Amino acid sequence: MLNKIYVAVLHYPITGKDGRILTTAVVNMDVHDIARTCRTYMIKRYYVVNNLPVQKQIVTRVLNFWGSDFGKNYNASRYEALELVKMVSYYEDLIEDITKAEGISPIKVFTSAKKRSNMVPYDEMKEMVLREERPILFLFGTGQGMPKEILETCDVSLESIRGHSDYNHLSVRSAVAITLDRVIGEFVQKGGS
Amino acid sequence: MLNKIYVAVLHYPITGKDGRILTTAVVNMDVHDIARTCRTYMIKRYYVVNNLPVQKQIVTRVLNFWGSDFGKNYNASRYEALELVKMVSYYEDLIEDITKAEGISPIKVFTSAKKRSNMVPYDEMKEMVLREERPILFLFGTGQGMPKEILETCDVSLESIRGHSDYNHLSVRSAVAITLDRVIGEFVQKGGS
Repeated sequence: MLNKIYVAVLHYPITGKDGRILTTAVVNMDVHDIARTCRTYMIKRYYVVNNLPVQKQIVTRVLNFWGSDFGKNYNASRYEALELVKMVSYYEDLIEDITKAEGISPIKVFTSAKKRSNMVPYDEMKEMVLREERPILFLFGTGQGMPKEILETCDVSLESIRGHSDYNHLSVRSAVAITLDRVIGEFVQKGGS
Repeated sequence: MLNKIYVAVLHYPITGKDGRILTTAVVNMDVHDIARTCRTYMIKRYYVVNNLPVQKQIVTRVLNFWGSDFGKNYNASRYEALELVKMVSYYEDLIEDITKAEGISPIKVFTSAKKRSNMVPYDEMKEMVLREERPILFLFGTGQGMPKEILETCDVSLESIRGHSDYNHLSVRSAVAITLDRVIGEFVQKGGS
């Protein structure tokens, strides 16, 4: 259902260039751009998953600024978008938080620019977004992407964007925008939360 | 035709909050994200339009870094995207540059989150992108958007993204990504330049 869609951007665990697992840094622009996209597509919550306390402090500072009287007054629509953001430390916390809020665990959707077996096409995903009663969580990686340990926990492995093209290096900000537009598009849920 | 699509992001002339015309600052992330999106959708050139010399210096510095041996070695795909970027001072220079390169002036497409009369729907725009022989230029604003003087020079005023939604504050980075995906999608031009 359109009123139970969640988005999470993982900064940990992420595969590094050398194949080792690492934490990527939060980019201020990620938080802003993805929050604005999520608000536009009526996403219920946008999670930033990062296990480093100092990284969480940075995001908290950004959120506190835009949530202050000055910030709200300066740009009310920015505050409205950033209200959707929630910081958690680990993937497990993310799943637990949604499960607690919804009373049922979400359908987990893995996204990646890399080709995988059994990828679900966008048309099918769109149908699921419209009909499915359970909450749906779209997972996005940073750095070189999410490791296979995350893929193995997922229910759906979504088709890559322009997988037949010769270049697959979209920013996570652009990938979130395109993915939500492909699966939600112009649909507007009336009376949704 | 898919091999004659251009994108321009205007920093001048832009409407300010008080309605006056101003120049907006270049955001480093704009250049990177939009270049990567343009490369993914095989756009011919991505123009940054800014009339302030110091702003052009900033972009030139970014481009020089990623075009250096160190930059190319550090991230070859980033260089490949940034190669598409061209700085011009004024809207008139932009039109002249494309007209010179193509031997014919481009079809100018105005985009905006604001509702306008005679908006062309995405299906129609998609058809045009596939069939039209003339080059097509997609114009994106920053700040509070492009003024009506730019709209009046345009051939097409494209439909807003989620115009029926209650929130229309996508970043220009997300708007470019969604627009190109809606009009080009998974089409890959073989043998295009």
